Amino acid sequence: MTHFIKKLSKQAGLAPGTLVHIGENETESTTITVFDYDAENFQEKTVEKVEDIFPFKDTSTVTWVNVNGVHDTSIIEEIGKYFELHPLVQEDIVNTGQRPKYEDFGKYIFVSLKMFYEQGGEIIIEQVSLVVGSNFVLSFQEKEGDVFNPTRERIRQAKGRIRRKGSDYLAYSLIDAIVDNYFVILENYNEDMEELEEDLAIGPRIEVLQTIHKLKRDAILLRKSVWPLREIISGLQRGEDQLVKADTTIYFRDVYDHTIQVIDTIEAFRDMAAGLLDIYLSSMSNRMNEIMKVLTMFAAIFIPLTLIAGIYGMNFKYMPELEWHWGYFAVLGLMAAIGSSLLLYFKRKKWM
Amino acid sequence: MTHFIKKLSKQAGLAPGTLVHIGENETESTTITVFDYDAENFQEKTVEKVEDIFPFKDTSTVTWVNVNGVHDTSIIEEIGKYFELHPLVQEDIVNTGQRPKYEDFGKYIFVSLKMFYEQGGEIIIEQVSLVVGSNFVLSFQEKEGDVFNPTRERIRQAKGRIRRKGSDYLAYSLIDAIVDNYFVILENYNEDMEELEEDLAIGPRIEVLQTIHKLKRDAILLRKSVWPLREIISGLQRGEDQLVKADTTIYFRDVYDHTIQVIDTIEAFRDMAAGLLDIYLSSMSNRMNEIMKVLTMFAAIFIPLTLIAGIYGMNFKYMPELEWHWGYFAVLGLMAAIGSSLLLYFKRKKWM
Amino acid sequence: MTHFIKKLSKQAGLAPGTLVHIGENETESTTITVFDYDAENFQEKTVEKVEDIFPFKDTSTVTWVNVNGVHDTSIIEEIGKYFELHPLVQEDIVNTGQRPKYEDFGKYIFVSLKMFYEQGGEIIIEQVSLVVGSNFVLSFQEKEGDVFNPTRERIRQAKGRIRRKGSDYLAYSLIDAIVDNYFVILENYNEDMEELEEDLAIGPRIEVLQTIHKLKRDAILLRKSVWPLREIISGLQRGEDQLVKADTTIYFRDVYDHTIQVIDTIEAFRDMAAGLLDIYLSSMSNRMNEIMKVLTMFAAIFIPLTLIAGIYGMNFKYMPELEWHWGYFAVLGLMAAIGSSLLLYFKRKKWM
Amino acid sequence: MTHFIKKLSKQAGLAPGTLVHIGENETESTTITVFDYDAENFQEKTVEKVEDIFPFKDTSTVTWVNVNGVHDTSIIEEIGKYFELHPLVQEDIVNTGQRPKYEDFGKYIFVSLKMFYEQGGEIIIEQVSLVVGSNFVLSFQEKEGDVFNPTRERIRQAKGRIRRKGSDYLAYSLIDAIVDNYFVILENYNEDMEELEEDLAIGPRIEVLQTIHKLKRDAILLRKSVWPLREIISGLQRGEDQLVKADTTIYFRDVYDHTIQVIDTIEAFRDMAAGLLDIYLSSMSNRMNEIMKVLTMFAAIFIPLTLIAGIYGMNFKYMPELEWHWGYFAVLGLMAAIGSSLLLYFKRKKWM
Amino acid sequence: MTHFIKKLSKQAGLAPGTLVHIGENETESTTITVFDYDAENFQEKTVEKVEDIFPFKDTSTVTWVNVNGVHDTSIIEEIGKYFELHPLVQEDIVNTGQRPKYEDFGKYIFVSLKMFYEQGGEIIIEQVSLVVGSNFVLSFQEKEGDVFNPTRERIRQAKGRIRRKGSDYLAYSLIDAIVDNYFVILENYNEDMEELEEDLAIGPRIEVLQTIHKLKRDAILLRKSVWPLREIISGLQRGEDQLVKADTTIYFRDVYDHTIQVIDTIEAFRDMAAGLLDIYLSSMSNRMNEIMKVLTMFAAIFIPLTLIAGIYGMNFKYMPELEWHWGYFAVLGLMAAIGSSLLLYFKRKKWM
Repeated sequence: MTHFIKKLSKQAGLAPGTLVHIGENETESTTITVFDYDAENFQEKTVEKVEDIFPFKDTSTVTWVNVNGVHDTSIIEEIGKYFELHPLVQEDIVNTGQRPKYEDFGKYIFVSLKMFYEQGGEIIIEQVSLVVGSNFVLSFQEKEGDVFNPTRERIRQAKGRIRRKGSDYLAYSLIDAIVDNYFVILENYNEDMEELEEDLAIGPRIEVLQTIHKLKRDAILLRKSVWPLREIISGLQRGEDQLVKADTTIYFRDVYDHTIQVIDTIEAFRDMAAGLLDIYLSSMSNRMNEIMKVLTMFAAIFIPLTLIAGIYGMNFKYMPELEWHWGYFAVLGLMAAIGSSLLLYFKRKKWM
Repeated sequence: MTHFIKKLSKQAGLAPGTLVHIGENETESTTITVFDYDAENFQEKTVEKVEDIFPFKDTSTVTWVNVNGVHDTSIIEEIGKYFELHPLVQEDIVNTGQRPKYEDFGKYIFVSLKMFYEQGGEIIIEQVSLVVGSNFVLSFQEKEGDVFNPTRERIRQAKGRIRRKGSDYLAYSLIDAIVDNYFVILENYNEDMEELEEDLAIGPRIEVLQTIHKLKRDAILLRKSVWPLREIISGLQRGEDQLVKADTTIYFRDVYDHTIQVIDTIEAFRDMAAGLLDIYLSSMSNRMNEIMKVLTMFAAIFIPLTLIAGIYGMNFKYMPELEWHWGYFAVLGLMAAIGSSLLLYFKRKKWM
Repeated sequence: MTHFIKKLSKQAGLAPGTLVHIGENETESTTITVFDYDAENFQEKTVEKVEDIFPFKDTSTVTWVNVNGVHDTSIIEEIGKYFELHPLVQEDIVNTGQRPKYEDFGKYIFVSLKMFYEQGGEIIIEQVSLVVGSNFVLSFQEKEGDVFNPTRERIRQAKGRIRRKGSDYLAYSLIDAIVDNYFVILENYNEDMEELEEDLAIGPRIEVLQTIHKLKRDAILLRKSVWPLREIISGLQRGEDQLVKADTTIYFRDVYDHTIQVIDTIEAFRDMAAGLLDIYLSSMSNRMNEIMKVLTMFAAIFIPLTLIAGIYGMNFKYMPELEWHWGYFAVLGLMAAIGSSLLLYFKRKKWM
Repeated sequence: MTHFIKKLSKQAGLAPGTLVHIGENETESTTITVFDYDAENFQEKTVEKVEDIFPFKDTSTVTWVNVNGVHDTSIIEEIGKYFELHPLVQEDIVNTGQRPKYEDFGKYIFVSLKMFYEQGGEIIIEQVSLVVGSNFVLSFQEKEGDVFNPTRERIRQAKGRIRRKGSDYLAYSLIDAIVDNYFVILENYNEDMEELEEDLAIGPRIEVLQTIHKLKRDAILLRKSVWPLREIISGLQRGEDQLVKADTTIYFRDVYDHTIQVIDTIEAFRDMAAGLLDIYLSSMSNRMNEIMKVLTMFAAIFIPLTLIAGIYGMNFKYMPELEWHWGYFAVLGLMAAIGSSLLLYFKRKKWM
Repeated sequence: MTHFIKKLSKQAGLAPGTLVHIGENETESTTITVFDYDAENFQEKTVEKVEDIFPFKDTSTVTWVNVNGVHDTSIIEEIGKYFELHPLVQEDIVNTGQRPKYEDFGKYIFVSLKMFYEQGGEIIIEQVSLVVGSNFVLSFQEKEGDVFNPTRERIRQAKGRIRRKGSDYLAYSLIDAIVDNYFVILENYNEDMEELEEDLAIGPRIEVLQTIHKLKRDAILLRKSVWPLREIISGLQRGEDQLVKADTTIYFRDVYDHTIQVIDTIEAFRDMAAGLLDIYLSSMSNRMNEIMKVLTMFAAIFIPLTLIAGIYGMNFKYMPELEWHWGYFAVLGLMAAIGSSLLLYFKRKKWM
């Protein structure tokens, strides 16, 4: 959260369309790979210079250019110039703190999404931007990632429909890969929540509170990133874009359904995390009740006995009981009687 | 909940339309039954091989193919190929973790719903998929179930309108059977809630908390499964599908009303479960108050008396009272007086 | 609540349109009354057999048939057949657990509402169904009731516009009577809430909690029954039905406004009932604070004094103070000094 | 709240359009004033009989008839008959428990609003009804009020545009006066809330709870009365009425913006009042913690010392320490040591 | 909050369009600067008299008039007259308590926004009004500010597109500068929240409560000011205004996305602030539990031992144990045994 806001405030005061990278990964070098294919042909290439991808642009084959690393703004600018991307699109690509968005520029569609993956127990959020033209797709990631590998594999091995379909289907495949990945995160989230629930069943510990808080924060964060997707994919699925062919819209409809399911699940998680807090608080107050019962029992049983002992410890000259031979034992007996009847009383009240 | 998410994350990385069964019931064998009827004729058959159902497809009679078990993807694929089902439909049928959905493919409508039933105190959620063509209905269940039995009976005995109506009415009958079954679940839910309420009236026990939590979870789960139905049946009822005849829409409107009623009831249950938690917490704090009253009363009455006893237990040389003959009894009397006036005070304060 | 759900689950598995009475009042006999009137003529009749009402149907006068008791399904079926009511309408009439609904069948409009009235401190919910044709209105109640009496009186005495208007105005009058009756219930509800508030001002008692819970339940129940009315009357008021004449829509608009007011009031009640719970809980915790103060004060004042007494009760050989002549009184003085300064301290802390 | 509901239930059972005054101010006499003006001419008159206003109706000048007091139904009826008001409009004027509404009757517009003003610390709600015709405005108030005085003054002195504009602008001026007055109420409300906040900062007292409750109630009440205005003024501002001229709609748009601002502010107040309750409850629990600390400290320090005193008060024959010459002082020293180390321990735990 | 409401109530009773300054900064003098430019030419001027800006109005170049200080109503009136601004627009400019609004007057667009900046730890809200004509932009600020400086710099140095674009792009630049500035505020807000979270992790202190309350208040306030922007910029971005050229709408769409992001973030902050309160309350109750444990432990261990000491302090004649030689040490041993076994018991219960 922090992260995003800081980034955007850095940009305040700049001319719109000024390319300023806002993000973290500023040291790794940018790598560019090209996939160029149709049903028969396939070519895969890692290019050194941006110019190397230009020849692919005007071929009739589908060209997929994947750029890993968006901190080198000159590369983005060069690509942007060649593919005639609007300055604001270029700005959105390098500014990784954007809200997910979708914009139809006629000659191409711009889509910006959030990708989640876990790294060392932390949920990492990365921005992926897609530019979809009539026969090309440009994808921009913050770092080298493996979410798109299955798609690459399918292209290489001509599995499924992908090689017979156009750039819109490729865009669908990439978005589908990202959305499917959300379920992995949700699964982990769910496991954390179940673990917590078991912890709570044993007894409330103070750390649990921090974990619940973290879960709630994460749910808010996830929600904020996934919610805009609803609108975005709804836009693609409606089939109003000329670039999205009629028989591809049904695939987008499928991703749409998955997105709704992700959102529904996050909402359910929020409700359930709130429920866990309720349990925690109730357990705490249960606990308190038990502590109080112990205290009360001890106090209520021993204080009267102490009074009795105190009475017979008084130094009055004339205290007939003190002279009785069995007085001491009688008093002990009396104490035992009072103590056990109080004990019985508390047992009946279910305090033990 | 867990269940669903795990299932879908398993699918991440696969080509769309790849048939991977996601669900649990992987051991039972798949059974296929065919009902073929019109107003005059009726035929019922349990087929061994998928091919056996093909002859029924192009007859003018209504053909209902019910498939129990969706884990054998080859069967689904074979049926899918013959009935020209879209690959994504096939995927949705075998993937039982889907969100309920409705899709009109022109030549057929695809509807996917959740069915609830109780088994051993647990609410089981099963996915039912329906493919409705102009003269056939394909239904896919995860397991052999008895929810459709009354519909079968009505077809066999030509009761009601069903034999005189088309495939759209059959689809309605099946959906109606599923939705009517929700009321059985809600009834059980309501009974649980009433029981809980009685429990709470007697006194709050810690187990109650777990039950309330379970009820809230169930309500969230039910809601998530039923909510999408609203949209689905609304779609069918609006009469925009060519496959749904005008005089059948009124029946769908009736199911729609029932669905809304189910949703309303679940919402009311959620509110009421939240109310139960409030009562629980309030009772807990009532309880605490009572414990504290007992403790305070014991402490407040006996501590002053103990002080008095302590005073006359001091060993000062010159303590005139100790020499008085009736000193001891006077002190006992004083103690009784103080004790009972404190008691009276607490009685007035309604602490007893 | 319970009531409704049980009823509907009873119906699961039946053919749609099967008339099964779902409700409670199964013993009283059904009574049918007919009002037939126009501006000049008026006739009132209690019929014995259903056939007796048929002659009235095709006259040019307005005919109002009121049926008390819907458990005798054969009567409903006979009327339904003669007035050509859709089987689902007949089913909705006898099934008193329906959600309020409105349906336009072209030749007639079907409206189903909930009527509230108090009986012995309980809010009773009864279903009223109306079938409005071009020159007749059929009304079905669960029991003999007196909500429609003022309307009857107005027809008999030709008061107001009713005798000069058609069946749509009659339908309006009946719905208006039902909605106006909601205000009586809300008034009682409000009185209960005010009483509770006064109770809370005096001091929180445990029974209050049950009452608040009951109030919240009732609000949920009322809301669930009234909410759908919004849509129903909005439909009638929009003037799209041919059966509702243009100059009657303004009357329906008036009922619509009242319905919105009822809903607004219920919502406000819910908020206020939630506020009462907050007060209750806060009072409880206030109470606790006071109990704790008493305990702490007693303990904090007497425990140090007891220690002093204990010290001078020790049996050391050499304790110079014990030998002092005024030692005892000095100690008593010391005790008084300590006790009163502690008392003062607590007074300053406003614990007394 | 109570007030409104009681009023409406009184009406249940009456023929629609029956004029029954529902409200409180039944003793004061009704006063009627007429303002008749155009850019050049101006006439102001307080009439005795209703007929005195009729001559003004058909002049080309703008006529504003203000009626103070709506309990005398015969007056309303007479005016209604002459200005051809629909019976339901007449009913709405005399029934002061109406929900704010807006209705276009073609020849005139009917608007009903709530006016707030403070009287003796209480917020008084009064109903104002406006009937706007092509060249007249009828306004009905429950009592003589001074909210319209600035408008009167402007007409008298021909200040601003009012004398050059038509009846729609006059209607706007009156509504604007009412809405502007809401800000006065909100200001007072805000002051109450700030005062409360300062009170809470000093320390939570039980009366605070009642005040918060009152504030929340008032917010609910205000909201219920202002919310419908949104729709009403939105209707006027849209310029669909023939009676509202194009260049007046911009003024209504301005009132609309103010109304939204009032609603926004009320919503913010609700949130803030809820926040105050949270602070109150937290302060209470802080308080409890402090009381408990005091108790625990006293108990934990003195109880061990009392034990020591008790031990050396035992009467065993052989207790070597008792014989020591400095035994007594050693024990006193020991006590001081234990007491002060415990004190130190609690200081470190920040309990002091 | 207070601030705004007071301001508006001051206006109640005035004729619409009466210029009354409502705001605070009434002492500083008003300064007016003019920027006049096209792609080739540029002129910057600080004018003394309002008339000095009139020559710029009808040139073909873009003219930006910035007015700092809106308390001198005569200046606003003069400008208003010359630029033919509607009286209500003039009123809205000087009344700084307005809700953000947008209004299209055909010949010009009026936009009113809130600008935030921090000053001495407080969030200051200032109103900025923009009037956008075909070749001019008027901007009105309450005080001299530096938010527009980067835009000024860009115009002076002909950086970016601004000098080649029209008045609509200039308006966009100004709005963009304001919205970008929101992120700075959100960043600070976020830092406060993180600091608080760390504070809470250490331990709950009472001041934390005040800070949470302040954060919640600020969130409500921010929300109220930013929320209307959604609608406003949505209006500009839709491209329905003739004054906003087609290729500028995409820039407004970008600001729109930022606005939504600001709103999303504020909502997330609200949820998180609520979460912090939950943590605070839970920590408080944890704390209470720990205090209670200490108290209970002390009481439960020492009270029984005190009883034993009390018993052997009784003065009965015949108490055999007292005569035993090792009696005293046996009792001390017994005490140690009881004490340590209780200690062990509490350790097992995890109370230590």
